[in-house]
Amino acid sequence: MEEISPGLENVYIKYTELTYIDGNNGIMRYRGYDINELAQKSSFEKVSYLMLFGKFPDEAELKAFKSSINKNLALPDYLKDILRSLPEKSDSLGILQTLLSAKASEEGNYKYDRENDIVKIPEILGNVLSMVANIYRLKSGNNIIDPEPGDSYAETFLKACFGSTDKDSIKSMDSALILYMDHEIPASTTAALVTASTLSDMYSSLAAAIAALRGPLHGGAAEGAYRQFLEIGSPENVNEWFKNNILSGNKRLVGFGHRVYRTYDPRLKTFKKYADILSKTEEQKNILEIARKLEEAGVNAFGKKGIYTNTDFYSGIVFNAMGFPVDMFTTLFGLSRISGILAHITEYVETQERLIRPRAIYRGEKERKYPE
Amino acid sequence: MEEISPGLENVYIKYTELTYIDGNNGIMRYRGYDINELAQKSSFEKVSYLMLFGKFPDEAELKAFKSSINKNLALPDYLKDILRSLPEKSDSLGILQTLLSAKASEEGNYKYDRENDIVKIPEILGNVLSMVANIYRLKSGNNIIDPEPGDSYAETFLKACFGSTDKDSIKSMDSALILYMDHEIPASTTAALVTASTLSDMYSSLAAAIAALRGPLHGGAAEGAYRQFLEIGSPENVNEWFKNNILSGNKRLVGFGHRVYRTYDPRLKTFKKYADILSKTEEQKNILEIARKLEEAGVNAFGKKGIYTNTDFYSGIVFNAMGFPVDMFTTLFGLSRISGILAHITEYVETQERLIRPRAIYRGEKERKYPE
Repeated sequence: MEEISPGLENVYIKYTELTYIDGNNGIMRYRGYDINELAQKSSFEKVSYLMLFGKFPDEAELKAFKSSINKNLALPDYLKDILRSLPEKSDSLGILQTLLSAKASEEGNYKYDRENDIVKIPEILGNVLSMVANIYRLKSGNNIIDPEPGDSYAETFLKACFGSTDKDSIKSMDSALILYMDHEIPASTTAALVTASTLSDMYSSLAAAIAALRGPLHGGAAEGAYRQFLEIGSPENVNEWFKNNILSGNKRLVGFGHRVYRTYDPRLKTFKKYADILSKTEEQKNILEIARKLEEAGVNAFGKKGIYTNTDFYSGIVFNAMGFPVDMFTTLFGLSRISGILAHITEYVETQERLIRPRAIYRGEKERKYPE
Repeated sequence: MEEISPGLENVYIKYTELTYIDGNNGIMRYRGYDINELAQKSSFEKVSYLMLFGKFPDEAELKAFKSSINKNLALPDYLKDILRSLPEKSDSLGILQTLLSAKASEEGNYKYDRENDIVKIPEILGNVLSMVANIYRLKSGNNIIDPEPGDSYAETFLKACFGSTDKDSIKSMDSALILYMDHEIPASTTAALVTASTLSDMYSSLAAAIAALRGPLHGGAAEGAYRQFLEIGSPENVNEWFKNNILSGNKRLVGFGHRVYRTYDPRLKTFKKYADILSKTEEQKNILEIARKLEEAGVNAFGKKGIYTNTDFYSGIVFNAMGFPVDMFTTLFGLSRISGILAHITEYVETQERLIRPRAIYRGEKERKYPE
């Protein structure tokens, strides 16, 4: 008798040279390089290039890559019109999904091909930067703009959102973009792979990934963790809140535990560092202190079961300290994930393409006659 | 050493009580009922209800279901604005993906729940009918309308598209909606399942399915088969065209072969019948004759390898004879698939929910130092 593979948990869907995860020892590397080292020493553009094309760019390649990104920051008018058409209550991630779908619709199908990717992918990265920045602007009551190129992707993005920015925020944003870039095959990347396996275009594959990211079991953890801190309100409430809500079994502790880790999420270290650097106001420091005390309570209670803090526990604090509201966190996660997803789908389509078409086990009614 | 499961071909992703396929004997049943019998004797509304809620509706249930569909035929203004904003060259399937995404964005997340489905699902079916009809209208140079309810979903749809329709077309459309409603777990349904497994909403899950359907390896077969007939041009060209293009190995015969069948696609029978009934003009009869001769050549050449005609070989002829242009075929397929996909995601989420998160096998670079 055949059995199903629940959640495809033990199923290997592809070979990859992108991300290595050792969940027992809390190690994560992109193409062999430790992710925290990349987050400290490299840039979003270099790491994207490494992931997408298999090596760090030389000076000329990096210049060309950045220049292609920067040439694609102005959204076409129809996307601006759609942005203005959507009802005010539309959520930012859903708007991103809509804009990606509209772009797919206008462009038609893309022929996957290593030679074209170097042209196509930075174009997408420029476009998506501008989509996300303008979604933020629109939702915060600002006008839609064509972003001005800064020195880096992180700087261009933050300036497009806020008009100005500072060095610490740029470095934090750059690190977040790198740390969240890829995580092997989460549900969003799976949805993109399934889509790309039909040879559907890149924008549609990204839209499918965003559709999956929208689910509360996937992309919403940074937002959920942060809302917990807001609910607790003050560091001295942590222990009682933890006892009444978590130890009692009433709620799940958001930002703790991960299907692939049995120890601390390796990306946590760098996010914690930037949470510390960026939290400057009394309110930000208060939230950070709540997070620290809650982490301590969580690790004490669940660490022995292999359930530790994950990245999303601190990333919201970083995004908030940069100036973003809670409902943008998952969209920022999505922005960071774009080049990783593109690296996965091009790797799959260009080296091991096979239409993804699983089966179901039928256990319903046997043959029956139509009731006349 | 672990191995990957290429294309998840031998992987069972869920249990189902929906569709039974016996690929060796060319049998397909929905909840135990033969699909050709359903296509002949039932209606889209009854079969959708059967698939979604596990039984045929009684008279009151059917009336309520149809009434909910009909109450949701008027698209909200922002969707009409988006329809008008999209560039003329946008493809119809991509427009549908965009509208579904925009609706997801406006609605926010849906809590899956059997009690709500009976309200939510007919609402979606009404909305999608109106989306597809208005996409057709817009692309054929007509104004956007709020469809008037007809006696059946098929009639409402055809009247919304063309203003008027006839009994044969209504019966053919109703049958096509039923025959294409579900086919177990193709790539589009897989993309929807992955999306819904994160508890993302129904509209986003449908948008992910449409993103996968866009790929030339999945949804485009009816269009591809029909374009073959147009290329051949006349029945007397079939044999030479077949020799020069197919037997020579230059092209793949579109509309032949299917991963799950080793014989004739069981849905073919009914599509052939309606192709025959609806083809009335000289041009339509010419195309049908080309198809018949090409099918004969194909079965002679490939039948012994278990490669036979599939549904898409004749469905385009049916859609075209109703009045639809070639570039609407895949979108009509998408429209037919909506209730089947909703049946799969509600079955999955409500009876066996587990976040879908496969793994990859890493075979890239070992640990290496960042080049300083």
